Amino acid sequence: MRNIKMTIEYDGGRYLGWQRLGDSDKTIQGKIENILSAMTGTEIEIIGSGRTDAGTHARGQVANFKTTSKMDLTAMQDHLIRYLPRDIVVKELEEVPERFHARYHAAGKTYSYHVWNNVVPSAFERHYSYHYPGHLDIDRMNEACSKLVGAHDFLGFSSLKKSKKSTIRTINDITIQQEGNLLHFAFTGEGFLYNMVRIMMGTILEIGAGTMEPEYIDAIIKSGIRSEAGMTVPSHGLFLDAVYYD
Amino acid sequence: MRNIKMTIEYDGGRYLGWQRLGDSDKTIQGKIENILSAMTGTEIEIIGSGRTDAGTHARGQVANFKTTSKMDLTAMQDHLIRYLPRDIVVKELEEVPERFHARYHAAGKTYSYHVWNNVVPSAFERHYSYHYPGHLDIDRMNEACSKLVGAHDFLGFSSLKKSKKSTIRTINDITIQQEGNLLHFAFTGEGFLYNMVRIMMGTILEIGAGTMEPEYIDAIIKSGIRSEAGMTVPSHGLFLDAVYYD
Repeated sequence: MRNIKMTIEYDGGRYLGWQRLGDSDKTIQGKIENILSAMTGTEIEIIGSGRTDAGTHARGQVANFKTTSKMDLTAMQDHLIRYLPRDIVVKELEEVPERFHARYHAAGKTYSYHVWNNVVPSAFERHYSYHYPGHLDIDRMNEACSKLVGAHDFLGFSSLKKSKKSTIRTINDITIQQEGNLLHFAFTGEGFLYNMVRIMMGTILEIGAGTMEPEYIDAIIKSGIRSEAGMTVPSHGLFLDAVYYD
Repeated sequence: MRNIKMTIEYDGGRYLGWQRLGDSDKTIQGKIENILSAMTGTEIEIIGSGRTDAGTHARGQVANFKTTSKMDLTAMQDHLIRYLPRDIVVKELEEVPERFHARYHAAGKTYSYHVWNNVVPSAFERHYSYHYPGHLDIDRMNEACSKLVGAHDFLGFSSLKKSKKSTIRTINDITIQQEGNLLHFAFTGEGFLYNMVRIMMGTILEIGAGTMEPEYIDAIIKSGIRSEAGMTVPSHGLFLDAVYYD
């Protein structure tokens, strides 16, 4: 069996998220599987590096699938580009060893979150950033980010109920870049819990706005209580930028 | 009468263009006029710096309107932002002398055109750039641009039939910037004929692709024959960036 790794970009605005939901044609996984299955004449299942939420975008989602098809990779990519809707683009295909698994072998990911920080909204960024009109203090937000970096129990920053599995995750780096009115937050870590980036982001914004102190981060890590953290910011500002493999 | 100058940003994707068409709700001018008329209780007509085509975007369209309303500018802008659809944003309002006329007094404009130059399309740039997959030679395109700069008869680069009015226009500057796969062409001039930027752009692309020689520019300027120039590139890659007043 050939094992093929795909790197995928998508505008998540029209979709219910990555993961296939029955026969629904409203998921990224579903769209790609339908085209691959028709192309190869056999039912194809693709394994994503992880789910993305409804409305969330990706610049570098990774998935793999197995097939006996002999089609060459360029022809396969051309076919996918031609038949997928224009908001899903397979950027790269690569032949990988049969044991490669896009989820189990993912060693890290970078997510980014975009905030449009001006009283006046943006006509062009409206689908790709969260509009936050109030003042944000970058120094305070950087202080919050530095407290999140490291290996911590992130249960309080997730939408999980108390789980039997470990909720300890390692964040390697959080950066903030400013480009005019656009703030670009990048989170790199070994793994993330459900809604973790969006809840960390909501908390960072409250700290930047002055309604929460940076020290709350330590307290939420300690307590694990979701309601002490900030809001879950909207999914349309979130991008899965990259998935790393060793 | 107060005279108010507006700077407007819009994503033209859903609209039939700037200019009001009867009662249609599908033009930028119509949308803004309807809200200003309801806000002030009198019929307001806005004067734009010029039309933009169906599908064309703006980062800095300028218009003005007269009103006896005493509403302050901040409240007026808040009202416009609240009631306009999110793809039309009034970025700035300014009180100007009563004689100011957004069209007659426009001394220059900058348009930009975006080309996504890669075999693989972009999920995010699909509404805001023209996808051109082939090789483009930047040096040849720069040579073409330098031939377009200056005062010339641009009849051959317009969709006008032979007109009694002068078709001589002055282009001050054309620049090409590359940002990854995105090529950003900026055209600054005192004025532009109908479809002139899109036809110049189509011609520059043919020269970049090697299917036309840079010297053709001189010949088209001399002959004034539209069919000798390149295609009219699609409107969704075009942005009206700025309008200048003395």
